[in-house]
Amino acid sequence: MLWDYEQPVTIRFGCGRVTEIADVAESHGWENGLIVSSEHFVRDGTTDRLIEASNGRLTAAFSDFSPNPDVAEVDDCAAVIRARGHGFVVAMGGGSAMDLAKAAASIALTDDSIADYHGTGKAMPVDHLPLIAVPTTAGTGSEVTCVAVLTNRKLGRKAPIVSSGFFPSVAIVDPELTVSVPPKVTASCGMDVLSQAIEGYWSKGHQPICDACAVHAAGLVFDYLPRAVADGSDLQAREKMCEASLIAGLAFTLPKTTSSHACSFPLTNIHGIPHGEACGLTLDWFVRVNKNAQSGRVQHFARTLGFADADAMADAIHDLKTRIGMRTGLADLHLNDGQIADLVRISRHPNLYNNPVDVTDGMLEDMYRHLAAIA
Amino acid sequence: MLWDYEQPVTIRFGCGRVTEIADVAESHGWENGLIVSSEHFVRDGTTDRLIEASNGRLTAAFSDFSPNPDVAEVDDCAAVIRARGHGFVVAMGGGSAMDLAKAAASIALTDDSIADYHGTGKAMPVDHLPLIAVPTTAGTGSEVTCVAVLTNRKLGRKAPIVSSGFFPSVAIVDPELTVSVPPKVTASCGMDVLSQAIEGYWSKGHQPICDACAVHAAGLVFDYLPRAVADGSDLQAREKMCEASLIAGLAFTLPKTTSSHACSFPLTNIHGIPHGEACGLTLDWFVRVNKNAQSGRVQHFARTLGFADADAMADAIHDLKTRIGMRTGLADLHLNDGQIADLVRISRHPNLYNNPVDVTDGMLEDMYRHLAAIA
Ligand SMILES: NC(=O)c1ccc[n+]([C@@H]2O[C@H](COP(=O)([O-])OP(=O)(O)OC[C@H]3O[C@@H](n4cnc5c(N)ncnc54)[C@H](O)[C@@H]3O)[C@@H](O)[C@H]2O)c1
Ligand SMILES: NC(=O)c1ccc[n+]([C@@H]2O[C@H](COP(=O)([O-])OP(=O)(O)OC[C@H]3O[C@@H](n4cnc5c(N)ncnc54)[C@H](O)[C@@H]3O)[C@@H](O)[C@H]2O)c1
Ligand SMILES: [Zn+2]
Ligand SMILES: [Zn+2]
Repeated sequence: MLWDYEQPVTIRFGCGRVTEIADVAESHGWENGLIVSSEHFVRDGTTDRLIEASNGRLTAAFSDFSPNPDVAEVDDCAAVIRARGHGFVVAMGGGSAMDLAKAAASIALTDDSIADYHGTGKAMPVDHLPLIAVPTTAGTGSEVTCVAVLTNRKLGRKAPIVSSGFFPSVAIVDPELTVSVPPKVTASCGMDVLSQAIEGYWSKGHQPICDACAVHAAGLVFDYLPRAVADGSDLQAREKMCEASLIAGLAFTLPKTTSSHACSFPLTNIHGIPHGEACGLTLDWFVRVNKNAQSGRVQHFARTLGFADADAMADAIHDLKTRIGMRTGLADLHLNDGQIADLVRISRHPNLYNNPVDVTDGMLEDMYRHLAAIA
Repeated sequence: MLWDYEQPVTIRFGCGRVTEIADVAESHGWENGLIVSSEHFVRDGTTDRLIEASNGRLTAAFSDFSPNPDVAEVDDCAAVIRARGHGFVVAMGGGSAMDLAKAAASIALTDDSIADYHGTGKAMPVDHLPLIAVPTTAGTGSEVTCVAVLTNRKLGRKAPIVSSGFFPSVAIVDPELTVSVPPKVTASCGMDVLSQAIEGYWSKGHQPICDACAVHAAGLVFDYLPRAVADGSDLQAREKMCEASLIAGLAFTLPKTTSSHACSFPLTNIHGIPHGEACGLTLDWFVRVNKNAQSGRVQHFARTLGFADADAMADAIHDLKTRIGMRTGLADLHLNDGQIADLVRISRHPNLYNNPVDVTDGMLEDMYRHLAAIA
């Protein structure tokens, strides 16, 4: 078996460590930083406090973007970076903030629009401003990945861009920042972690270091996600979910995600289902589809986590969704045949081809009809 | 819990990939390379073949060093690098070749002797020539660590030096290179892998990413080491042991090793027991010492690997040693009281203080008396 590995992101993990932004910038000699932040942290004053405490290293904030950020919002952020001559970027927020910042920190060094690179196959430029990623949702793992997921609302397209220039230089993971995440978002982000770990493991691009990370991360989600959803102030559960999210990021960034992520794109784009909830919706289905692929690796994964077999793990995923209030079906959407056909068609995303078992349109249609019939 | 992580080594893994040395050098623009290689590969013509196939990137070889390399041999290699103006170094061999090359590639940019830094606490210079590490023993994991273990025979001292400049730029792990390792060396190196994985896990400096790597690597050793020892041409077993060795390297390089490595130094220095065999000799003993430390983490580790508990894992380590012909005692050395006192005294090495349970002189004496009495 041939495989390559790189993990260029330096990680600082622990409660309270968000205050180390200035240290990091100073030790690298980075100046005139822009902090790209979810609105939540502008409203509660965190962004201002960090700028004040930065010994002049951070000079402005940007928060004009929406969840599942649009290519136009990336271009706006890049224009701000160019106009103000920023020397580095801090991305503090969920996947939306981090992905927007990754793309803006690259595109700002060109005169291009990110739309030229989104879903077009055009390779991103290699140069980029240094980025410090500070995740606040325990979901995407974007703080250690070379992926940015963007949306082009004009074209109705949501797709990842992959570029080795998207690896942040430093990730600061401070679990205290996640205490304010509402239960529904906690649950959805946690399902994203679980999907990324499991899909990274069974992806056709799987490899041993990522396998080890996938097992570790998935185990933590089963143990700690219900606690983090039930009591957002449970700091141990928050810390373990931040660990799971980070390590799931390591697990999938090189192997890439597969079927559940492919299916999540139309579920989010057309039906507005949050990213992680959309991934989790089909995850147990695909565990059953893939359970005997790759000479029993998925069975081995399930047994290492303490399940009797892959079917028992699929059952546990279904139970987990029920316990944390994530949807297990689509009945409330009253999907008609045309809508099901659209879901099937748009699920045929490149990530689907990383799935270890070939997924036919018939299989997708069966799945969506089954989900459409249950609550 | 606060922890940091960095893993700056790019990894290329797979049979036949040693031929990519020239690609790597070209892609980085490195010229006039020195290949530091175990004598074995000079004798069998591999070194010459790689130089010929390198498009002029490799210009000379160096193999004037012994297992457990001496500081004087590092200085000699550094002198060659300075005299010939080498621009990068390839280290192809076991831990001895890689550690010598790491130290020489750093010290060559100064006029110092490595002895000034060995066991003295003086920090290594940050600058160093780029290094490509090509392990050939499936043992030390030195290809991904920031450690170089050197010996000063004049002072009777064996000790690791740690420097972030010791991380190789690139590791090329080609399992075919390990097919020629003799059974005794395979067995000893495999015990090194197991010790490094387990000690990295329970070290006071443990951290989650390294934990995940430790579990993965240790599991592979139990499954594949007996096969690799029994039949050196079993390429699947060799590949899995290379994977285990690499991933155990990731598991311990940041947390550092502990008690078994501390005790290995006098066993190697005074009694000539090979490094891995010396580590493995005390490993099951320390599993029993540490089994209930860290709120049950060691028990959890054992159970994740499929053992009933930590005691069962200790039994399995003992069985493994018997099966692969590694010593389980020191009776043949007929140690007298003074020799036992020396072992106790010299085992009090800094690594001992990374052990999760405080190890007293009394505990060490009990252990060595027990080992001295059995075959
Ligand atoms: N780059 C990657 O590797 C990767 C991987 C998976 C998903 N994604 C993408 O990331 C996006 C989803 O990211 P997400 O799930 O983190 O959600 P998000 O970033 O969209 O955030 C969800 C909501 O929570 C708010 N929020 C964030 N942190 C908060 C906090 N600490 N307290 C209170 N509110 C907070 C945000 O303002 C937002 O309204 C999607 O676009 C998805 O496709 C990227
Ligand atoms: N740097 C680290 O992180 C680290 C970790 C553990 C141990 N070490 C150190 O590494 C050294 C031990 O390294 P090692 O166990 O790899 O042994 P080694 O490098 O000393 O090699 C052992 C013997 O095997 C020969 N050899 C190597 N590869 C061969 C092959 N493919 N075919 C046939 N013969 C081969 C060598 O020439 C040598 O004679 C010790 O000094 C130990 O303290 C370093
Ligand atoms: Zn995702
Ligand atoms: Zn060792």
